[in-house]
Amino acid sequence: MLPDLTDLDRFRAALSAAPASDAVARDAAADRNGQLTKPPGALGRLEDLAIWYAGWRGDARPDIKAPQVIVFAGNHGVAAQGVSAFPPEVTAQMVQNFQSGGAAINQLAHAAGARMDVHALDLERPTADFTQGPAMDKAELLEALRTGWQAVDPGADLLVVGEMGIGNTTPAAALSCALYGGEPADWTGRGTGVDDAGLANKTRVVAEGVARHGQGGDGLDLLRCLGGREIAAMAGAIAAARVLRIPVILDGFICCAAAACLTRVAPGALDHAVAGHQSDEAAHGVLLGHLGKPPLLSLGLRLGEGSGAALAIQILKAALACHSGMATFAEAGVSDS
Amino acid sequence: MLPDLTDLDRFRAALSAAPASDAVARDAAADRNGQLTKPPGALGRLEDLAIWYAGWRGDARPDIKAPQVIVFAGNHGVAAQGVSAFPPEVTAQMVQNFQSGGAAINQLAHAAGARMDVHALDLERPTADFTQGPAMDKAELLEALRTGWQAVDPGADLLVVGEMGIGNTTPAAALSCALYGGEPADWTGRGTGVDDAGLANKTRVVAEGVARHGQGGDGLDLLRCLGGREIAAMAGAIAAARVLRIPVILDGFICCAAAACLTRVAPGALDHAVAGHQSDEAAHGVLLGHLGKPPLLSLGLRLGEGSGAALAIQILKAALACHSGMATFAEAGVSDS
Repeated sequence: MLPDLTDLDRFRAALSAAPASDAVARDAAADRNGQLTKPPGALGRLEDLAIWYAGWRGDARPDIKAPQVIVFAGNHGVAAQGVSAFPPEVTAQMVQNFQSGGAAINQLAHAAGARMDVHALDLERPTADFTQGPAMDKAELLEALRTGWQAVDPGADLLVVGEMGIGNTTPAAALSCALYGGEPADWTGRGTGVDDAGLANKTRVVAEGVARHGQGGDGLDLLRCLGGREIAAMAGAIAAARVLRIPVILDGFICCAAAACLTRVAPGALDHAVAGHQSDEAAHGVLLGHLGKPPLLSLGLRLGEGSGAALAIQILKAALACHSGMATFAEAGVSDS
Repeated sequence: MLPDLTDLDRFRAALSAAPASDAVARDAAADRNGQLTKPPGALGRLEDLAIWYAGWRGDARPDIKAPQVIVFAGNHGVAAQGVSAFPPEVTAQMVQNFQSGGAAINQLAHAAGARMDVHALDLERPTADFTQGPAMDKAELLEALRTGWQAVDPGADLLVVGEMGIGNTTPAAALSCALYGGEPADWTGRGTGVDDAGLANKTRVVAEGVARHGQGGDGLDLLRCLGGREIAAMAGAIAAARVLRIPVILDGFICCAAAACLTRVAPGALDHAVAGHQSDEAAHGVLLGHLGKPPLLSLGLRLGEGSGAALAIQILKAALACHSGMATFAEAGVSDS
């Protein structure tokens, strides 16, 4: 069902040939929605979510039984330029924390009834500093994409991908700027909490990366030059879910930067994805605007790890509980006007 | 613990004497929050919610085990003036639907792990039409308040109150206008979906009610003149929760209009409450502004029944799962800067 990723062209071809949402299931779900015991439209976005999910799963009355959260971790050459408030060794320490169940994403995945997997990608081997050259070569990019591609459980019925990687709002800002233009400063924020001098330094690093590798161009090439292993792995997992028709809830700025690269590979690459939340990292709202994805939640989170998206799993589950569990006007004997 | 409501003065006295949040537990929770394995503030409003909840429960590391959702139903004399898109018999039909588990709130309460109770208040005896005289007399108001007051389980650790009552956005608009001033048209919306002519008629009814009964004044008197039985019952339940230090998640426009009346009885009457969501009924956002309660969710819901607040239970539960379940920097061996 999921082709083996032997090369980057295979990735492009699989994503471009991915199946569409099932119009029959979607229409049947919309019809059912119109018969439920509530005024038309009174459940707002919950109604749209249920119909959208029904289409991707090919089931007019679905529920979510097997959500999967995957956290990818990677280290970044640009971290050596002091772009983060935390030292690079925190990436590996937090991977340990994920594995022992102590991080926010552990609690949030558990609360949402989701399986959680963690993949650490060559933490001892950071990507190259993108101000000096491409962050990865083609083989490294392919390997990272494959890690994500293969991490998706084909039996999952919902996917959230998150990340951990000290310094990774810097590649996310560089990728966003390269994809959508604008000033580096507009895409660069405080991440985990750099001060004013740190922000100025980070903006310079983003600007140098974008100047070196250029704006626009192919999504995979940008991922290779300006991305990181965990960012490419997220892109690989989101793409695999698209091929498998597993709906995705996008997380924050870094996740969305990874996802945005896929839209330059295939225009419909994110049709199966909704935005779980809007992060407090200001550029995330701008990026969601470019993606055309209004967020489900806006609670000031800026943690990453998949945290905001995992929180939104419960919104989607609730939407489907209403859609699939409510009585119709006829079943309940309620007057429908 | 909860005094018997023998008269309205007993209600006023109990609400005015209700205990404050526990500052020791709140400070201990804030201290714990600062040690968790995340950058400071990175969980945004989830952090504030956890600390707020800890204070009300008097426990620095609490969780939510026994949330209660109560739906109150009532009928309204003003419904005879054609203010709703649905006929009054739908109130009783929906109560049946709540009891047999077919409504949206049943699914949402179940998804949140909440117990759900339904109280129908004299459905065969609508309140009086408030354009002609007070909706209730003092004995009727007291009875409705008592229904809510007694419906709260003292063992609950979180409360959501919702309502069903055909026509009840009309008293909610009249109460809001009487409490906060402004034009009747600014407080009057389409409710379950009236057309332009219906909206004009509804605005006239609101204006007549406010003109007859006056703006400002005592919260209980406004509830009596312009409210309804389910609205007073919600106020009674929210007040009982305040006395019992059970945190409350407020629902939409009608619930918040009921709650707003309490602030005219005791200024701190809603200190134990957060706004679960912002409804698509435009006046709800204005009302939340007056209450100083930013909503947790904004998903275009306009159903009532407690639906938006029940959805927000999961946000609060997730906040506490993180707060109480996460490892500290010291426990996880993660560098905190």
